Amino acid sequence: MANKAEERDLIFRPHFKTHQSIEIGRWFRAFRVHKIAVSSLSMAAYFAQNGWDDITVAFPFNLLEMEEANALAEQVDLNLLVESKEVIQQLDKHLEYPVNIFVKVNLGNNRTGVDTTDFDTLDALAEQLLVADKIGFMGFLGHAGHSYTARGKSEILQVHKQCLSKIATLKERYQPAFPDMIISYGDTPTCSVADDFPHVDELRPGNFVFYDLMQHQIGACEEADVAVAMACPVVSKHLDRNEIVIYGGAVHFSKEFQIGKKGEKHFGKYVSLQQDQWGPLEETIYLKSLSQEHGIVHAPDYFIEKVKEGELLTFLPIHSCLTANLMPCFQMLDGDRLEKMKLALV
Amino acid sequence: MANKAEERDLIFRPHFKTHQSIEIGRWFRAFRVHKIAVSSLSMAAYFAQNGWDDITVAFPFNLLEMEEANALAEQVDLNLLVESKEVIQQLDKHLEYPVNIFVKVNLGNNRTGVDTTDFDTLDALAEQLLVADKIGFMGFLGHAGHSYTARGKSEILQVHKQCLSKIATLKERYQPAFPDMIISYGDTPTCSVADDFPHVDELRPGNFVFYDLMQHQIGACEEADVAVAMACPVVSKHLDRNEIVIYGGAVHFSKEFQIGKKGEKHFGKYVSLQQDQWGPLEETIYLKSLSQEHGIVHAPDYFIEKVKEGELLTFLPIHSCLTANLMPCFQMLDGDRLEKMKLALV
Repeated sequence: MANKAEERDLIFRPHFKTHQSIEIGRWFRAFRVHKIAVSSLSMAAYFAQNGWDDITVAFPFNLLEMEEANALAEQVDLNLLVESKEVIQQLDKHLEYPVNIFVKVNLGNNRTGVDTTDFDTLDALAEQLLVADKIGFMGFLGHAGHSYTARGKSEILQVHKQCLSKIATLKERYQPAFPDMIISYGDTPTCSVADDFPHVDELRPGNFVFYDLMQHQIGACEEADVAVAMACPVVSKHLDRNEIVIYGGAVHFSKEFQIGKKGEKHFGKYVSLQQDQWGPLEETIYLKSLSQEHGIVHAPDYFIEKVKEGELLTFLPIHSCLTANLMPCFQMLDGDRLEKMKLALV
Repeated sequence: MANKAEERDLIFRPHFKTHQSIEIGRWFRAFRVHKIAVSSLSMAAYFAQNGWDDITVAFPFNLLEMEEANALAEQVDLNLLVESKEVIQQLDKHLEYPVNIFVKVNLGNNRTGVDTTDFDTLDALAEQLLVADKIGFMGFLGHAGHSYTARGKSEILQVHKQCLSKIATLKERYQPAFPDMIISYGDTPTCSVADDFPHVDELRPGNFVFYDLMQHQIGACEEADVAVAMACPVVSKHLDRNEIVIYGGAVHFSKEFQIGKKGEKHFGKYVSLQQDQWGPLEETIYLKSLSQEHGIVHAPDYFIEKVKEGELLTFLPIHSCLTANLMPCFQMLDGDRLEKMKLALV
């Protein structure tokens, strides 16, 4: 991903919310990354304490965190997202240090952001930012989140094309008044699959650090690209029901699921754990249900017969961001453990 | 719940996995509670450090945690769950301190446990426990988890009746050889609704400490009984789509949902926050979708017009256990914060 951005002369600002780990962050340094995106001010503070000094909080600014924003803006180059004049007013009034502002735009995902055709609102925000004192206009930031409903490369590229058209309109309209403005764009499916990013200045994907079964289903990655798995001990076996019970439930995996070929739910899929990798997906062995701590694994007879209580089984997660978020650290295959951000109140 | 158990001469052993808080644990002391259930050895250790000395880990024993079991068994009266001869053998071989053993039975939930009609297995486990050295047979433990599919009091009582019949069979068959054996039973719906618990010796519900929208849907509680809510700041408003965006996503609520009357998903429902309570459910205002940190709230025009960025909105959770598990502490309405167990590796 770093090479892809570099070859196209794009800023690469990976989103660190997927791994939330200073140690994994260091791997990115080796790929010349020095700008990052995060999803909260507390996550920004965690990475700032570890030397990251150019951080975008890629989430609409929460007015209750003005104090935290000021504390960070004193230390690092901080970029915040806004989409209303009320928030811009409050930021301009209460910030004590310079901050750069992205206007969040809706690229078709309809989650958040100003519609790219709503020029009344966009013009008003742009004018407000032109005269603001403590805050500078950085540009527009969008997330092609609707790529998550795509299945296969051509559907992803169709979403990408629609987004690029909206981005072109924004660039043409606002670049004359703001020659330094940039367009920040990112979501793992389009960034993984697309080759061309006209009018885009910055790529901001996050999930690609691990990928997962959802990205595989979308067509953003190959099965072998999935780089994180959950290892869970077998606590009981039920041959009569073709089930294995693992210590691994909703508090470990999250309740994200996929629907299988026969309409059954999959909360994760088994792979064998080998020396320094895992084997291919075994389609007949999957997590069929989760309660708080229990996971029920569907498996064929031969597998249940050979597996033992206390044995660790390894599952690829449906959504690696949510699964990783629930875990206190990462266990490497060579035995090392990598630190992660701790859950705490801001 | 404490009074109900006391009036029926039942042991009350509430499950503490829902709140995971020593401070909420103290409230139970005031109701004469001195025995608890938890779902992991790390949770048992957390409560043991805070004076709880009679703890059941209500989860099939994980053989990878023998060391942790020994450390706890030295300090407290520890009860563990088994359902296979392999695990009993390992426990008897490696435990250095006495531990009591419940055999986990399947009361119809089909999640885990030995079927109550599988006398070959049950007899074999009972014989093994009779001759075991370090471990004593405490009795049978079951969870009527299929009460969660019930809707209304009469369906809950039907599940209860089926479970009681299985329990009676166990008691009649095994009490002659084990006169001190007990039956531990528990799940919030049946314990909330049923009046009679023949042959049951111990009640072990957990979720009732807070209840939630799922329990309300099942018919286990009234709306006004729900005692925990999530407060989330408004970060943006989209009047054209009847949507409000809050900083409150899957990493705060979990992805548990209910289906509304028109087939729409509900990930939480809005209540107004008042001085020392919350108002009734407002059916037209609910969380319609969640991504990692974003929550999208469906709301009518009048509500979106009056709400402001930075304002806190309050939502009752679908499943309070999963939502509370994601939060680092509890905020009381009088301003106090209550400590919770921290996420850590065992």
